[in-house]
Amino acid sequence: MTKQEAGGRGRTNDPEGMRQRLLDAAFVAFTTRGYNATSVHDLKREAGATGGALSHHFPTKKDLGLAVLRDRVADAVEETWIAPVRTAPDAAQGIKQVFAAIAAELDGKGAVSGCPLNNLALELSRQDADFQNVIDDIFGRWRRAVADRIRADQEAGRYVGLDAETFATFVVAAYSGAMAMAKAGQSTEPLRVCAALLGKMMTEEAAA
Amino acid sequence: MTKQEAGGRGRTNDPEGMRQRLLDAAFVAFTTRGYNATSVHDLKREAGATGGALSHHFPTKKDLGLAVLRDRVADAVEETWIAPVRTAPDAAQGIKQVFAAIAAELDGKGAVSGCPLNNLALELSRQDADFQNVIDDIFGRWRRAVADRIRADQEAGRYVGLDAETFATFVVAAYSGAMAMAKAGQSTEPLRVCAALLGKMMTEEAAA
Repeated sequence: MTKQEAGGRGRTNDPEGMRQRLLDAAFVAFTTRGYNATSVHDLKREAGATGGALSHHFPTKKDLGLAVLRDRVADAVEETWIAPVRTAPDAAQGIKQVFAAIAAELDGKGAVSGCPLNNLALELSRQDADFQNVIDDIFGRWRRAVADRIRADQEAGRYVGLDAETFATFVVAAYSGAMAMAKAGQSTEPLRVCAALLGKMMTEEAAA
Repeated sequence: MTKQEAGGRGRTNDPEGMRQRLLDAAFVAFTTRGYNATSVHDLKREAGATGGALSHHFPTKKDLGLAVLRDRVADAVEETWIAPVRTAPDAAQGIKQVFAAIAAELDGKGAVSGCPLNNLALELSRQDADFQNVIDDIFGRWRRAVADRIRADQEAGRYVGLDAETFATFVVAAYSGAMAMAKAGQSTEPLRVCAALLGKMMTEEAAA
């Protein structure tokens, strides 16, 4: 099939709406069931899309995987982590609020599917270099947002004992691992434990 | 095919050796490529096993997955984490040595495949309750070994400011997340950063 044919067959009255439906369905499937465990056939059914529509927007499954990372996983990290940390009264409160909000959401759902970025990072980083690069970029943006926030607070005289870069790495690691343990145990307890210890570290540095 | 036929066809002069070869091949495949991305066909080829031998030892792929978790992943956690932490001069030195040894090994290999337990935890915890239970048990043993070591040191007057249980959860989370970031960035830097900060936390508590 040529691209033109695929485009012709996939065209609907709302091609952008179809693209978004495909991304939504793929985001849920890839970050919960897994990229490799999800068939293109399932995705078409879940998005209500024809084969032509799918191959018009995403010629290969890998194209869809990269778009899910760039357009959905990156947004999830922005919304759940980067924006709240940026707008909180200070870094410590921002970090504690993010952990608490996510733990409360998971308790409400009664199930822990894990962090979308970490789920795909462990599945795909070694499978394909393009996936790895996009995943590492998102981790980098997340880490920098936490570091930037700590540095901004440091200019106001807080957390002067912390190294912003290394502590930001530590925060992202503790969250990522706590979410892995939460998923394994289907319990938000590891998130609450790690949030309390990170908060304690920051409070001690703030007072220092 | 009945079980008896499978057993008959799979029998060799060294059935236990064949079982171990299948487990070795499946451990590598499941923890690097992933459980869902590995076909039974690939496993037979990689282990040099017939279909009869495979179905004699592991009637289903899930049986093989559970055996890999119980007999290989649990052993990997025991060897890389539990035993070194138990035999180190103290908890802080044990934890720092484990991080350093793993980072050095990964630097030597030039590639980061990630933590076998975390890789399978994120892929399989929500796929199947039996997988989840075995994975959570292994995390529990790992966490308890760190907590037991901290408590033993506390009886000798060290780390009295730490809560052994919650700090053990934090150590396992920080390591797990650092390994996820290491895999995404193909760099051991997150492991070194997290080891240094955990060490600092413990040293401060030891001095307190």
